[in-house]
Amino acid sequence: MSDSIKRVVLAYSGGLDTSVILKWLQVTYGCEVVTFTADLGQGEELEPARAKAELMGIKPEHIYIDDLREEFVRDFVFPMMRANARYEGDYLLGTSIARPLISKRLVEIAKETGADAVAHGATGKGNDQVRFELSAYALNPDIKVIAPWREWDLASRTALIDFAEKNQIPVPKDKRGESPFSTDANLLHTSSEGKVLEDPWEETPDYVYSRTVNPEDAPDTPEYIIIDFERGDGVALNGQAMSPATLLAALNDLGRKHGIGRLDLVENRFVGMKSRGMYETPGGEIYARAHRGIESITLDRGAAHLKDELMPKYAELIYNGFWFAPEREMLQAAIDHSQANVTGTVRLKLYKGNASVVGRKSPLSLYSERHVTFEDDAGAYDQKDAAGFIKLNALRLKLLAKQGQ
Amino acid sequence: MSDSIKRVVLAYSGGLDTSVILKWLQVTYGCEVVTFTADLGQGEELEPARAKAELMGIKPEHIYIDDLREEFVRDFVFPMMRANARYEGDYLLGTSIARPLISKRLVEIAKETGADAVAHGATGKGNDQVRFELSAYALNPDIKVIAPWREWDLASRTALIDFAEKNQIPVPKDKRGESPFSTDANLLHTSSEGKVLEDPWEETPDYVYSRTVNPEDAPDTPEYIIIDFERGDGVALNGQAMSPATLLAALNDLGRKHGIGRLDLVENRFVGMKSRGMYETPGGEIYARAHRGIESITLDRGAAHLKDELMPKYAELIYNGFWFAPEREMLQAAIDHSQANVTGTVRLKLYKGNASVVGRKSPLSLYSERHVTFEDDAGAYDQKDAAGFIKLNALRLKLLAKQGQ
Amino acid sequence: MSDSIKRVVLAYSGGLDTSVILKWLQVTYGCEVVTFTADLGQGEELEPARAKAELMGIKPEHIYIDDLREEFVRDFVFPMMRANARYEGDYLLGTSIARPLISKRLVEIAKETGADAVAHGATGKGNDQVRFELSAYALNPDIKVIAPWREWDLASRTALIDFAEKNQIPVPKDKRGESPFSTDANLLHTSSEGKVLEDPWEETPDYVYSRTVNPEDAPDTPEYIIIDFERGDGVALNGQAMSPATLLAALNDLGRKHGIGRLDLVENRFVGMKSRGMYETPGGEIYARAHRGIESITLDRGAAHLKDELMPKYAELIYNGFWFAPEREMLQAAIDHSQANVTGTVRLKLYKGNASVVGRKSPLSLYSERHVTFEDDAGAYDQKDAAGFIKLNALRLKLLAKQGQ
Amino acid sequence: MSDSIKRVVLAYSGGLDTSVILKWLQVTYGCEVVTFTADLGQGEELEPARAKAELMGIKPEHIYIDDLREEFVRDFVFPMMRANARYEGDYLLGTSIARPLISKRLVEIAKETGADAVAHGATGKGNDQVRFELSAYALNPDIKVIAPWREWDLASRTALIDFAEKNQIPVPKDKRGESPFSTDANLLHTSSEGKVLEDPWEETPDYVYSRTVNPEDAPDTPEYIIIDFERGDGVALNGQAMSPATLLAALNDLGRKHGIGRLDLVENRFVGMKSRGMYETPGGEIYARAHRGIESITLDRGAAHLKDELMPKYAELIYNGFWFAPEREMLQAAIDHSQANVTGTVRLKLYKGNASVVGRKSPLSLYSERHVTFEDDAGAYDQKDAAGFIKLNALRLKLLAKQGQ
Repeated sequence: MSDSIKRVVLAYSGGLDTSVILKWLQVTYGCEVVTFTADLGQGEELEPARAKAELMGIKPEHIYIDDLREEFVRDFVFPMMRANARYEGDYLLGTSIARPLISKRLVEIAKETGADAVAHGATGKGNDQVRFELSAYALNPDIKVIAPWREWDLASRTALIDFAEKNQIPVPKDKRGESPFSTDANLLHTSSEGKVLEDPWEETPDYVYSRTVNPEDAPDTPEYIIIDFERGDGVALNGQAMSPATLLAALNDLGRKHGIGRLDLVENRFVGMKSRGMYETPGGEIYARAHRGIESITLDRGAAHLKDELMPKYAELIYNGFWFAPEREMLQAAIDHSQANVTGTVRLKLYKGNASVVGRKSPLSLYSERHVTFEDDAGAYDQKDAAGFIKLNALRLKLLAKQGQ
Repeated sequence: MSDSIKRVVLAYSGGLDTSVILKWLQVTYGCEVVTFTADLGQGEELEPARAKAELMGIKPEHIYIDDLREEFVRDFVFPMMRANARYEGDYLLGTSIARPLISKRLVEIAKETGADAVAHGATGKGNDQVRFELSAYALNPDIKVIAPWREWDLASRTALIDFAEKNQIPVPKDKRGESPFSTDANLLHTSSEGKVLEDPWEETPDYVYSRTVNPEDAPDTPEYIIIDFERGDGVALNGQAMSPATLLAALNDLGRKHGIGRLDLVENRFVGMKSRGMYETPGGEIYARAHRGIESITLDRGAAHLKDELMPKYAELIYNGFWFAPEREMLQAAIDHSQANVTGTVRLKLYKGNASVVGRKSPLSLYSERHVTFEDDAGAYDQKDAAGFIKLNALRLKLLAKQGQ
Repeated sequence: MSDSIKRVVLAYSGGLDTSVILKWLQVTYGCEVVTFTADLGQGEELEPARAKAELMGIKPEHIYIDDLREEFVRDFVFPMMRANARYEGDYLLGTSIARPLISKRLVEIAKETGADAVAHGATGKGNDQVRFELSAYALNPDIKVIAPWREWDLASRTALIDFAEKNQIPVPKDKRGESPFSTDANLLHTSSEGKVLEDPWEETPDYVYSRTVNPEDAPDTPEYIIIDFERGDGVALNGQAMSPATLLAALNDLGRKHGIGRLDLVENRFVGMKSRGMYETPGGEIYARAHRGIESITLDRGAAHLKDELMPKYAELIYNGFWFAPEREMLQAAIDHSQANVTGTVRLKLYKGNASVVGRKSPLSLYSERHVTFEDDAGAYDQKDAAGFIKLNALRLKLLAKQGQ
Repeated sequence: MSDSIKRVVLAYSGGLDTSVILKWLQVTYGCEVVTFTADLGQGEELEPARAKAELMGIKPEHIYIDDLREEFVRDFVFPMMRANARYEGDYLLGTSIARPLISKRLVEIAKETGADAVAHGATGKGNDQVRFELSAYALNPDIKVIAPWREWDLASRTALIDFAEKNQIPVPKDKRGESPFSTDANLLHTSSEGKVLEDPWEETPDYVYSRTVNPEDAPDTPEYIIIDFERGDGVALNGQAMSPATLLAALNDLGRKHGIGRLDLVENRFVGMKSRGMYETPGGEIYARAHRGIESITLDRGAAHLKDELMPKYAELIYNGFWFAPEREMLQAAIDHSQANVTGTVRLKLYKGNASVVGRKSPLSLYSERHVTFEDDAGAYDQKDAAGFIKLNALRLKLLAKQGQ
């Protein structure tokens, strides 16, 4: 805390924790605070944050409340989906992909307001601190970052609430006790972790889920939907054109209804430990499967396999917070190049937790019934070519089998 | 056909097609035929193949009928599962992984019987011809391979049946018409392709499925199961020790009942075209998820991420028929090295097409509740370390952001 | 030869072999031939090819002689150099990179002249046939390709010369005997293989080299040169701005003089066998080292390491003939993205086979003397940050070391 | 420094810096010090370190002086060379590969002597601190590591010498002034960095080199040598069997004489900055080229290309200090698997900085003159096979070219 800070932009939700942070920044750094509250589709009202911020002395022109939903889906979620990114085989990166956008706005607002620092409410054990800070430094190498959870001595819930009460911060009744788990939400997903989830042998209790119905309670009748893609991105649902955020929201409704996108995972954090999380990504799971479906008929094998080989690294970069790193941008350039012809229509069946691709078609399809048919193919393919193909592929193996003979 | 062949070992199912091939080999090459019929768990009786072969003049000592189920699962399926292999993101390689074992036996029997050639019934359009032949050449570089479908002029079903009738090969009534699709089955999966599946926009008709109930007809109550792993391989189900093939068979029963493991896919063949297939891998799908589950708590991050990066290439090698290639063996050496501590227990919930990991535990768990806890961790982890960690990870990004300033 | 060909564009050097091919095409296919002779910097006069073609009855408007040197270096060599591509660790791909350009022109000329086929003089054992044909098919899927060496029965040198004499093709005296090796040359390199080089234990005889002096005969005094790069491409030598082809030619002169860029290699051909080649890439070797030199101070670590990981696959694609495949283009998109700031100046010392980078500077340098200095760095870098950095990088290894304790 | 330390094992060279550290540990931690001095072939006498340690009060049984040369080359250098590892394309990792061995002995000695900590003399800006500490933690997760350079306040050379004088540590006259650069040496290489090397545009002054003659001063006559390999490791020089360390030492003599293995590099440190180093790896450079040479005729293409793809990651792991991480061990398992048949003989020509492979032979050679020959190959290879090979490799490209037509 040796550096003197004049003005800091805080990622502010309006909740108890970030309100405590706001006050703590004022008290500890004696600096002016700018609040930034983002609508990323987390499903909470944001205007109450304004009143709270004003109450804590923030100047009206220093209270930023932004609707970032379209930017979030268009510039972050969709590009990531083009890569079929899943961390450790399964996780759709719902939290990871939101952090760089928040940092981007923090740094922009710092510039607009002449602030010299930004602050966030992530703890010192998690990945989010890394994601916030790497993004901030990449966008402004001179910015200072304050991470109160790594600095202060409010080590327990009680200490936090004491601080709140001492500083006239209203403590909602339901925040007095400890929450049985911690959550993060945005238009792509809700994650839950901690407390009741900390024993990875114990099944996730049903009350932890908030974004999806239990598949057992989902409709007994399947529902079929159709998604249109253009150049790698979803553009319409059931024939109706939609913006990125609108499409994802509509898919979320469908996924919720059919119990799709629940994931119980033990994952490896960048900071070196394993953690157990529960993710609900209803629309994202449907979208991800649909995207693979349209790629399956429009993407060349060489491109598809290269994408599959690059994906784990790409997903790891996003998970670890390197969205604004040049190697992520290089991979994105390669991936985006591949999507030029990923255009067409996918049909999916939604049923009790399953989102299955059942049909795909495209004016740019590479699938050639003429070549693949068991019937007479009218010379499209000469089976005798396969003999030479196999012979030359086998040559090195034959020479190897003779090695040393 | 310039090479003169004295004796050929034929992969013989006893069905119409391979019976025609048997006769065609006798007629065309004037050579002695040895038949090899393998039990890979395809669920058909094999003894009828003996009688048919005898009827076509094969000497009793030249009729091989082998039960390869344990070898198949132990030495092919399980090693592949250690890699979490899925081709093009989804396909569990059920057909691909069986071919090298069949070729291995063909080559062994050729040696035992002094045969100079082997023959198979795969067509010139598919991957199986490649898999059979690359494996055969890798194991015996001097072996000759006969692929009748690439050589003969029996271009239509009618021609085939004519040939059969002209040569006193009994044609079962249900084989007179054309099958509406083509299948391959073994203990790991059943695949279907062709005909009614050739339009990738049309949903797979229900009558194509043979190994799983429709999820809609599966039980309304979830079933929980427990699988034990030792050093990367499954060893017990619900506390009962089982051999590899027994375990996979038991999981197949469970998967069938709960409608698990159906996959409708457009994939890229090694010979250059796209094809649409339908796969049912009931036990394999459960096993694959369980294996990832036990890895999630016992495998180090560095090892896990390296495995994820290597997997697409590993899966492609198996799909393309390079099981016996040195690069597959190198990858296997790396993968097997990683499995030394992949020991423990996974709990899964099976319900209407879903196989979800809900719990995992291990005496060798790397998950440290002490480190990850939101509670006081008694100094296990010093949050201040994260500041330095982030600073040094950010350094190159900061220097980059200043580049050219 | 069942397809009837009306007009074919032949890659024609004017030499004996392609003259025989020209005639053979006329005789065998009874088709009209269009000749295409490219100046890729091979250092031979091209106009004699015109007279020869005319003599063999080619219409003047069907004789194409193009100077492709600038296109070759600008659109093929330089993009490849941006990737630091070396096949199997060493080979700078001088032949591989020229083939797609020749195919591109063959296909363009086929379109201009209404030809339905193209033809080349590569044998059935080598990589060049693959490179020519994959490129041609990728650019025009309906084009027919004629590869006389795979079709005709001119199995020996004698047969070839007989055919020439019978068809009034002049046979130069020095072509009567067999050449002791075979060569290919362009602005990037000269390759030699075959005959006297076929025993990989025997040292390459000195008379095989044509583009470089023996290092032992090179000047006893080193020469220093300076190359400027802009956005990843060389733009000036010793302060003098040069076009791509001019720059490469000037570096070739320097490399020749100092005996730089000789490579004696046993490599793996795409068709499955090993072959031994001798390459001389005088200017290319200097350029490649200079490019790595400028990258070393201007390219971020993440970008540089990603490039290094992608390079072997990229080089393999070019070697195997997949220049016009989408996966090569995807990799190129990633690589090109990385080169935006690869601008600056490299100083090299040339001396008896060595081309050593001895200095590099850039207005966009990422090298920070302030950070790296052993002296007081005025707070640029806080050594205490390293403690946290190491602690968190070690955490997973510590947990692993405690596994099972 | 909150932890109380009872006994610490110090990596002790006997020089001024580590003598100051020894005393500083005694003074600051009030703990007993065990010294460990390793002979890694750095070419300095080690016995003087014993007397110095005794003078500073170290018990005789707590003074360890070990000759680790054979272990170093056999278990660290050679395994790394099997991978053809070069960091950032060039650096042979001479410093990186020595650190894990030193840490291994530090941890072993700590166990033997009941010490609870280890200490090293690496600064907080470099990679070595990371390498020492990651290795130590991986081998003993409970060990404490003391890195005085990150802790103390001896910020300048003057402060260090003051501390030495105040504590009766003899300061050699030539250490009073500042060294113009800093070095590290072992049997594999000598590295130099800092001070006079800090401007990457300035050529390295000749006085920095200590392990190689200037190529300009090397013999005017080339020297030919022969190295034998068995299963991937060098076993003999010019027909004379040698142990690993003896072989490397002999190659060092040859490399020194011919000016081989100088490298001037700007590299990316793991801690985030670029640094400029000068490396001399005379024997290592010769050995590395010879190893590639023997691989070129004995290693299958699939294995070789997989090795090339894995190498950058493998080299990065060693550079970053992850020798004892499971992912390095996995890669090593794959690499070692590939070396089973890497047996044979390589001939090299050494001349003024160049070490060129000019011949290679092996009883296990995969090079088949019969297949590759331009002459009649007696049917070893059927050129017509290439047509089918190309057709099927082209099929996807053709379908792609027709996409959307």
